[in-house]
Amino acid sequence: MFTVREIATSLQAEAEGDLDLTVLRAAEPQDAGPDDLAMAMAPKYAESLDEGSARVGLVWEGADWQAMGLQAAIFAPRPRLAMGGITRLLDPGQGFGPGVHPSAVIDPEAELGDGVCVGPLAVIAAGARIGAGSVIGPQCYIGADVTLGRDAQLREGVSIGARATIGDRFRAQPGARVGGDGFSYVTPEVSGVETARKTMGDQGETKAQSWLRIHSLGAVDIGDDVELGSNCTIDNGTIRNTVIGSGSKLDNLVHVGHNTRVGKDCLLCGQTGISGSVDIGNNVVLGGQTGVADNIFIGDGVIAGGGTKILSNVPAGRVVMGYPAVKMETHTEMYKGQRRLGRLMRDIEALKKAVFK
Amino acid sequence: MFTVREIATSLQAEAEGDLDLTVLRAAEPQDAGPDDLAMAMAPKYAESLDEGSARVGLVWEGADWQAMGLQAAIFAPRPRLAMGGITRLLDPGQGFGPGVHPSAVIDPEAELGDGVCVGPLAVIAAGARIGAGSVIGPQCYIGADVTLGRDAQLREGVSIGARATIGDRFRAQPGARVGGDGFSYVTPEVSGVETARKTMGDQGETKAQSWLRIHSLGAVDIGDDVELGSNCTIDNGTIRNTVIGSGSKLDNLVHVGHNTRVGKDCLLCGQTGISGSVDIGNNVVLGGQTGVADNIFIGDGVIAGGGTKILSNVPAGRVVMGYPAVKMETHTEMYKGQRRLGRLMRDIEALKKAVFK
Amino acid sequence: MFTVREIATSLQAEAEGDLDLTVLRAAEPQDAGPDDLAMAMAPKYAESLDEGSARVGLVWEGADWQAMGLQAAIFAPRPRLAMGGITRLLDPGQGFGPGVHPSAVIDPEAELGDGVCVGPLAVIAAGARIGAGSVIGPQCYIGADVTLGRDAQLREGVSIGARATIGDRFRAQPGARVGGDGFSYVTPEVSGVETARKTMGDQGETKAQSWLRIHSLGAVDIGDDVELGSNCTIDNGTIRNTVIGSGSKLDNLVHVGHNTRVGKDCLLCGQTGISGSVDIGNNVVLGGQTGVADNIFIGDGVIAGGGTKILSNVPAGRVVMGYPAVKMETHTEMYKGQRRLGRLMRDIEALKKAVFK
Repeated sequence: MFTVREIATSLQAEAEGDLDLTVLRAAEPQDAGPDDLAMAMAPKYAESLDEGSARVGLVWEGADWQAMGLQAAIFAPRPRLAMGGITRLLDPGQGFGPGVHPSAVIDPEAELGDGVCVGPLAVIAAGARIGAGSVIGPQCYIGADVTLGRDAQLREGVSIGARATIGDRFRAQPGARVGGDGFSYVTPEVSGVETARKTMGDQGETKAQSWLRIHSLGAVDIGDDVELGSNCTIDNGTIRNTVIGSGSKLDNLVHVGHNTRVGKDCLLCGQTGISGSVDIGNNVVLGGQTGVADNIFIGDGVIAGGGTKILSNVPAGRVVMGYPAVKMETHTEMYKGQRRLGRLMRDIEALKKAVFK
Repeated sequence: MFTVREIATSLQAEAEGDLDLTVLRAAEPQDAGPDDLAMAMAPKYAESLDEGSARVGLVWEGADWQAMGLQAAIFAPRPRLAMGGITRLLDPGQGFGPGVHPSAVIDPEAELGDGVCVGPLAVIAAGARIGAGSVIGPQCYIGADVTLGRDAQLREGVSIGARATIGDRFRAQPGARVGGDGFSYVTPEVSGVETARKTMGDQGETKAQSWLRIHSLGAVDIGDDVELGSNCTIDNGTIRNTVIGSGSKLDNLVHVGHNTRVGKDCLLCGQTGISGSVDIGNNVVLGGQTGVADNIFIGDGVIAGGGTKILSNVPAGRVVMGYPAVKMETHTEMYKGQRRLGRLMRDIEALKKAVFK
Repeated sequence: MFTVREIATSLQAEAEGDLDLTVLRAAEPQDAGPDDLAMAMAPKYAESLDEGSARVGLVWEGADWQAMGLQAAIFAPRPRLAMGGITRLLDPGQGFGPGVHPSAVIDPEAELGDGVCVGPLAVIAAGARIGAGSVIGPQCYIGADVTLGRDAQLREGVSIGARATIGDRFRAQPGARVGGDGFSYVTPEVSGVETARKTMGDQGETKAQSWLRIHSLGAVDIGDDVELGSNCTIDNGTIRNTVIGSGSKLDNLVHVGHNTRVGKDCLLCGQTGISGSVDIGNNVVLGGQTGVADNIFIGDGVIAGGGTKILSNVPAGRVVMGYPAVKMETHTEMYKGQRRLGRLMRDIEALKKAVFK
């Protein structure tokens, strides 16, 4: 339970009205009861306040909160930013208990920092070191010689392979997998794939060969403040480590291949797949289901729209889209052209008739 | 072991021949032995009956079963529908034992209905309520205050986050993840992505900023008769709950983002990804690897072909395909036009020569 | 620790210099210390040797290793092949201990071969048979009546559903799921999807219907030397089994639907999705995020570029790309044509002015 005053202070935001009113939860305006903070951060949302019975609202700057029927209001100049503060304050969490659950299997050679919490049926292997204040959720697996920083929050069923190094405030959603072996194989002789890559499409004589495994000797290095989505996967490097830079966030079912380096403060949206040995700069945003071919370079600040397939290098600052990826404006032009293809064909037929007949 | 008569009765189907013959299993015609029910529901399958030794077949209406060498036949006017009945009858299941396995970790404040089965090393947290007859598979995790209806069937390694509400007859395949945190972040100032969305491709001055987390205060609401595939993921809502309507089926590795509402009786095929705050109607079918951008509306009865990327609203009843999604017939036209582009270019060159020279 | 002589012998490679020098690890040239084997298999990598302090290098045939400052060199005529041998030799593994961990739950009716290792909190169900020398990682699940061959290596959190049959030397990365139920449903009457498939886009009168389940009576058959990536999923067949041929390798988050047959020595790269009842030949390579529609035939030796959506049969030996998939050279032509569409449209306008005005 928080007073309007406490919330405003926490957000460093202005507030008006009865600042001693209290709220328990956040709610959308139409669902908000008298103990809820109504998220009415734009006029279109505020319209639904009548359907609920909120007394307190988070509103836009300059909103006439009294006319909305509210008894108190907190002003959010940048609404999504205020959402960050409000939701952190009101997050009820998963209820993972304090302490180490007796059913957890912790190797005597693992080191747990102060206040580490370990959920039921979690496994922590020899040589693992867990930083102070970290929460290892139920049924997690922390491999041999893993280093995990302070204040990590691992949900249920997360696994971290041997020798991974992870910074502070790491968050991983259910089923995230760090440190699987890289997908790396070789045929004894030159394969059809190698030939087709060189010739841009002709694999020559296809000879049936089996694949020999290239083992992963490297591990995964993850910076501070990194977050991984549910069931996402990050593979070990072959010789060097795969790297995820500080502040980067990976959504559900994202795949990062061996040797790849993801820079700082990147956002990889749902089901994005990065092949092996890719080099991604800082502040890169890849929309959902983006794919990146192997050995590609992507510069700082690149933005890719959803579904983009990046098959060649992308210079810093570019906004791209399409399969294969082109500049957003080129993609728009190509798409418009395709929509007009039927008319173009009819025009050409008419011209041919007029000219050649 | 079932007699032909029992199977026909169960399917409400006609049968002829020796109705007291018994079968143990279903089999494809070429593999079917004397104790198998041969799935010979179309002439092309019936041809292979000679390679096996079936005595009983599931055949099409009006089939001459005696000429096929069978001693009894069950008639299936709609073969796939009959498959539903037959396979339900003959499903051998996973052999998850009855009762609560002693290795399961069940919080004393969890409530289990009559006949609930809990597999080895499953965890059920405080406040969870499991409906009568439900089967919680080995190594599953049921979070705090989860409500799960009657007759659920959870395979191994399924996890359900805190406060999810799930209806009756829920089925989840191995590794399905309900209730991860939504992928929601905000930069302190306007980001390049926000600018690029407004300008359709120009992000202006790219300023490096870090991402602040918007926590998920909402949970997941799932109706009755919902099924989730292996390793699929459904995220919590931010303020309101993410919703999956009754009767909807999600395939393996499908992703549903925060706040999204999926209607009733939808089919989301393999690796489909739905972003946040999407509104999907009833009876929608999305082919494999479909992607849907955030804040999109998809009307009732929409069908999307495999690989479709839906980047704008789709009205009810439409059949779409492509990247970006267009009406199926438009897609076919655009594709034909593209295949003719080489010829068009040659035509234009010829015209230019004739006209301008 | 290995001598240069031992490594060269193991690789069946030539070596020169002080063959008694020893190395502990492999390293990239710039990171290599005196106890490391520097991976300097091409001139561009060898340039970085100066930044490190390697004494021993893996170099290309004919390389002047003494001029590079090395004291010994091993020659790799096919560098990636040498990587296979080197990394196998130096792989430190995951440190899964020997023997059966006391916290594992093993049904008395399961059979374990000689030297089988079972990690903490793994579950092995009744009737499962595990071949000699296999390693079942922590928190794995082996279902009822599963047959698993010799020398398997299962990482943490892998699950295998009931009745799967798997050959020798199977490897599965964390969270791989074998034997979920197939995604197979039927409506009581003809559905909009069935109609839209026949008419190529018109679903006629859309009637709202619910989906009835077709259960999976089949299981999964996996050959020898198969490897599965993290969180990848392979579904049970409906009547017959889903099949993965010997020597095939599946990357992270790959999905294989029910009844599908994958041939021998195939490579399915990251996030590839194969629908149900697909028939894939031998030595097929599908790039990352490839999708294959149901009931498709793909011949031996086919190669698909990343992001390809295969919607019709592909004959043996073809190299394809695009959505929908076409021959690589056709794709290149179509793409070039699209890039020229703007110019074409301007040409046509000019022609129309000249001819019709």
